[in-house]
Amino acid sequence: MIQLRVQTGTSSYTISVGNRAWQEVGRFCRREKYSSVFIVTESRIWRAWGRKFLQATGLHSASVILVPPGERSKSLAGVKALAQKLVKRRADRESAVVVLGGGVVGDLAGFVASIYMRGIDTIQAPTTMVAQIDSAIGGKTGVNLPEAKNMLGTLTPPRLVAANPEVLGSLSPRAYRSGLYEAVKHGIIQDPRLFHFIRENLKPILAQDPKIMDRLIAWAAGVKVRVVNRDERESDLRRILNFGHTLGHALEAATHYRRFLHGEAVGWGMLLANRIAEEKKMLPPTEARKIEELICSLGPLPSLQGITSRQLVALLGRDKKTVRGVVHWILSERIGSVRIVTRVANTLIEKAFRDVARLPV
Amino acid sequence: MIQLRVQTGTSSYTISVGNRAWQEVGRFCRREKYSSVFIVTESRIWRAWGRKFLQATGLHSASVILVPPGERSKSLAGVKALAQKLVKRRADRESAVVVLGGGVVGDLAGFVASIYMRGIDTIQAPTTMVAQIDSAIGGKTGVNLPEAKNMLGTLTPPRLVAANPEVLGSLSPRAYRSGLYEAVKHGIIQDPRLFHFIRENLKPILAQDPKIMDRLIAWAAGVKVRVVNRDERESDLRRILNFGHTLGHALEAATHYRRFLHGEAVGWGMLLANRIAEEKKMLPPTEARKIEELICSLGPLPSLQGITSRQLVALLGRDKKTVRGVVHWILSERIGSVRIVTRVANTLIEKAFRDVARLPV
Repeated sequence: MIQLRVQTGTSSYTISVGNRAWQEVGRFCRREKYSSVFIVTESRIWRAWGRKFLQATGLHSASVILVPPGERSKSLAGVKALAQKLVKRRADRESAVVVLGGGVVGDLAGFVASIYMRGIDTIQAPTTMVAQIDSAIGGKTGVNLPEAKNMLGTLTPPRLVAANPEVLGSLSPRAYRSGLYEAVKHGIIQDPRLFHFIRENLKPILAQDPKIMDRLIAWAAGVKVRVVNRDERESDLRRILNFGHTLGHALEAATHYRRFLHGEAVGWGMLLANRIAEEKKMLPPTEARKIEELICSLGPLPSLQGITSRQLVALLGRDKKTVRGVVHWILSERIGSVRIVTRVANTLIEKAFRDVARLPV
Repeated sequence: MIQLRVQTGTSSYTISVGNRAWQEVGRFCRREKYSSVFIVTESRIWRAWGRKFLQATGLHSASVILVPPGERSKSLAGVKALAQKLVKRRADRESAVVVLGGGVVGDLAGFVASIYMRGIDTIQAPTTMVAQIDSAIGGKTGVNLPEAKNMLGTLTPPRLVAANPEVLGSLSPRAYRSGLYEAVKHGIIQDPRLFHFIRENLKPILAQDPKIMDRLIAWAAGVKVRVVNRDERESDLRRILNFGHTLGHALEAATHYRRFLHGEAVGWGMLLANRIAEEKKMLPPTEARKIEELICSLGPLPSLQGITSRQLVALLGRDKKTVRGVVHWILSERIGSVRIVTRVANTLIEKAFRDVARLPV
């Protein structure tokens, strides 16, 4: 098992990675003596892993709450449904929520826990690649409004994150690959060695070779931990994690969250950001090709058909990264380093969109 | 103008009390250079005070958002409606919400601001007695679930509180008196001199004599400030502010928030807590009579008819102050001092309820 430590001015907690990480959840709950524990999960995951999770954690008396799958649960209606279940089952101020799930359940349940009676503890046991290396770490919680993603939320760190890479084995190949885009993202924004590690080990990574999984997850999660440790409140540094997300979110919104998995939208978003950076002469073409090649080799990505660059540009204004009407772009200058840029002409976005739509992904 | 200062480990802000307090709002907003300012208020208040508020603050370019009056706005539906308006009018991370209103608008808008894009600034300009001396101070925000009050919320301090007692002049006499119960509460829990000040100045207070209002508001608000300064996170001390609220909330829920104004329910709740403390021999009868007399002299209170003590007992289990199934009662031992008590027999609650229902209020 590999352990990482988040340590900021206001919070400190452990990220355990490995096939014995779930045991830590049980140990932690026993130590904290919660009045009651609520496992929030979704039926597919609970069917596949529930028995094993209870065995590993020993949380046999916990109450299990199932959340409907899919991005649409990440809404105020989802908040209400989950909170009402907690009230009905008498969750009180000394109760805890243990999340066994991916980004959607994690964001939703983390948000509800952070506002339930003005905040009860959350423990994250992420079950997707994106959640294990990114969304379960750092304390960002939230739900969508019909108008825009993650519009309402809190910054409330979990008490513990326990990532067991074994669970990724039950993801569909598409869902698994979708998470790899975020791992690549972590390489591009901060860690060229991680980028090349993924490039050189693509085969065993795609095959989920157990020998390599703990290392990959812990490494990619480590990038997030380092960023959070230096900037919990997203003043500036933390924004680099949004690489690929500016256009990624717009793509998701334009297709009503139906066509792309989140990681896939980020994959396209990175390809677009990559082209924009190259066109702006920020990023050398050799680096741009390496990034493009690796992203394309994780494909296929759902097509961009029917989406117009004009549509995307209109959606950018609603992004949380837009301040005083100015879109904040995260663009790479080389593998391992990105910068925040505020001036990107619409014509440049349109050109990048046309070019990228022709890539062999 | 009287200025108080909240200073805790995590926050520090000013409470300005007086008929020039609104000027401070304008000064603060100009200093902070917000990208945009949203005044959240309700139509009755805006009609009566909007022009004067804009004059005093100079916030002529602010966007005004009206929230429907009444406790029912304090719901997740209310959150959604307000948040969607903010999105539509392009509120961004550097925007601020200025609340001009009572407890309902303050709790709702404070909550929405605290989760909008994971938190933008709030400035409170409270317009009811309860809000000026209590709810606008300390950072508690939140909304109700159908099952229980204030079930979802955050603890997010405002950046400034500006209480202008003049606005209380446009409250209905009933709404104004309702706020006085909370002022009396502050006397009972911590400040015998405040209690006696209210008792001895009842006539000018009921008549809202301007010569006395600033002092009353600042004094009662000062009790809240002292409590918050010592215990922002409601570990223990802050719970004393819930005096009268355990049964008060149950009364509100039992009558679906329709019969009592919040302060009135607290009035009844204090009468009940008073009797329970007396029956338990915690509180000397002479003190109990003084408390009872003062509360009754603020009346009339809407009757308890049709409510059963059994109903109330059942509702107590859902209160946020209930932990591990144990209700936490705040009971007075003398004027100026309360204690947290966990053992109160249901028969005692029932007896107190019968006795209190016969009081001449």
